[in-house]
Amino acid sequence: MSETNRVWRLRRRPVGDITDDVLSFDEEAIPEPGDGQFLFRLNYLSLDPTNRAWMNEGATYLPAIPIGDPMRGLVCGTVMASRHPEIAEGDLVSGIGQWAAYQLGDLASVSKLPDTGPIPVIDAFGVSLVGPTAYFGLLDVGQPKAGETVVVSAAAGATGSIVGQIAKIHGCRAVGIAGTDEKCRWITDELGFDAAINYKTEEIVPSLARHCPDGIDIYFDNVGGQILDAALGLINLNARIVFCGCISAYNATEPVPGPYNYINILMKRARLQGFIVLDYMPRYPEALAALGRWMGEGKIKHRLEVVDGLEQAGATVRRLFTGDHKGKLMIRVADPA
Amino acid sequence: MSETNRVWRLRRRPVGDITDDVLSFDEEAIPEPGDGQFLFRLNYLSLDPTNRAWMNEGATYLPAIPIGDPMRGLVCGTVMASRHPEIAEGDLVSGIGQWAAYQLGDLASVSKLPDTGPIPVIDAFGVSLVGPTAYFGLLDVGQPKAGETVVVSAAAGATGSIVGQIAKIHGCRAVGIAGTDEKCRWITDELGFDAAINYKTEEIVPSLARHCPDGIDIYFDNVGGQILDAALGLINLNARIVFCGCISAYNATEPVPGPYNYINILMKRARLQGFIVLDYMPRYPEALAALGRWMGEGKIKHRLEVVDGLEQAGATVRRLFTGDHKGKLMIRVADPA
Repeated sequence: MSETNRVWRLRRRPVGDITDDVLSFDEEAIPEPGDGQFLFRLNYLSLDPTNRAWMNEGATYLPAIPIGDPMRGLVCGTVMASRHPEIAEGDLVSGIGQWAAYQLGDLASVSKLPDTGPIPVIDAFGVSLVGPTAYFGLLDVGQPKAGETVVVSAAAGATGSIVGQIAKIHGCRAVGIAGTDEKCRWITDELGFDAAINYKTEEIVPSLARHCPDGIDIYFDNVGGQILDAALGLINLNARIVFCGCISAYNATEPVPGPYNYINILMKRARLQGFIVLDYMPRYPEALAALGRWMGEGKIKHRLEVVDGLEQAGATVRRLFTGDHKGKLMIRVADPA
Repeated sequence: MSETNRVWRLRRRPVGDITDDVLSFDEEAIPEPGDGQFLFRLNYLSLDPTNRAWMNEGATYLPAIPIGDPMRGLVCGTVMASRHPEIAEGDLVSGIGQWAAYQLGDLASVSKLPDTGPIPVIDAFGVSLVGPTAYFGLLDVGQPKAGETVVVSAAAGATGSIVGQIAKIHGCRAVGIAGTDEKCRWITDELGFDAAINYKTEEIVPSLARHCPDGIDIYFDNVGGQILDAALGLINLNARIVFCGCISAYNATEPVPGPYNYINILMKRARLQGFIVLDYMPRYPEALAALGRWMGEGKIKHRLEVVDGLEQAGATVRRLFTGDHKGKLMIRVADPA
């Protein structure tokens, strides 16, 4: 075990983009576990749009990260020392932790990672983070019926790519919106989406209308903004909008208005529902079992973009907002033994 | 029977407010009922904010009124001649009709008004129009639980005043937002709301926070705009927003943005649901039975503002948008015999 910890800490709240002065990367002493706690070293750190929202002053679905605290993140690690009876040295754990090479955990924030079988731990961890979001968001909130049209934004992203594949498994038409031709080809050619729209090169409103000739029954929104407005303009009666994310607003420095087509929610008697996957924690085993089965059957594919080295986290998290990544973005510190 | 009909027709689509050139009031021949139709004379014409939305070019929950057509409205009339076996001369009917002294109906658009007992027809008609909106919107969409806080905008209006009273019947805290001190006194002193806010003289955000110390569980929205934003800023986890109307947007000439606190719907995992009472037509008897019972028990009070003369409709409908009326606004042409 190295003698020194390395910890990313939040030093100031970002105004707009995450600038160099927002986070510091410090050498610190490795903490000692108290009663009921355990110490684990970081294997993988997931980078997610929600990281940016946590940096803001207001509470999101979790409290804002206090200034000076370690940056919060979704982590996978190997236990080095334990003072909890159910956790032993060598156990793999995952959950909500810190951007820190060594950190303390308890069973309120992290849990043991089940045996991943033939699936590499990094892949199982990656899918375990975003798969339940896609699973519960689409199936529980969206309530798809065979033959319906499901549109998903950030469709080549970690969550969106799985949403479209689950929609196909349920007999829906899946239309994805992404920001490069490569991403569009990937979701149609590799993942089986029925259509993809490059919102950076195509006019979103007519293109969406062309690819949704029967209107939109479910819109799974990760982005907000103009794409949300385009989708709301095409919703069918009793449509459902799964409000999963709003990445277009996270870096905003001015108040961001809601969608201009807001009133269409009334006219179409649509249901727009905010959705945070943490509310579904007790049902994760159901989702992970289904996702594992579909992965084994080749019906769910995913991709990770892995960047080596915890020191890269500060620069890499910004790539979530430029669209300059493919699939789940992950920092690898060390593969588990 | 008078020899001449008088009909309000839509001559141009309003831009912003309803100006004098939008509607014409013409003398015309009285139409003859065809097979399955009946002719009725107008007793009462209800004036409702939705009238304005129907004048716009785009479809709402009903098709836009074609230019040149009679103005559409909610009507109560007495049958003069019938070519439908279930409808006889002298029957009272109500439903979706025209701003016309004489008009044709069929059972797709209007239905027989049940015997109103000791309740005057004009009151029964008035409550039958807005009562089901309050009933299904609050109870079915809002799903109130005893002890929750229900906030309603346009709370002294025809629908909002009943929403608050049903909330009280269900053991909720009812907070109303209205635009004059007289309206605020009426809903607290006469109707039993727990609190009222005059949004024209009070700062809405702090005032709402003061009157909702436990946050907002259900917001029944009739208005949109800044009041919606204030409410969204105070919603509790798993709040429900009953999206019933958006009167602040109906007269707009520029695109109207959605609420600035839109993202709070995500953070609070709230459900915002568009609601049009026409979808509940098959369940009207349930609502009307409950409303009749509560009216008989003195638990639901309402008020009508009645203006005499069909020729007043064009000027009177504009008062919906100035707040210059109290309760359900109604044109009386003739009481039924």
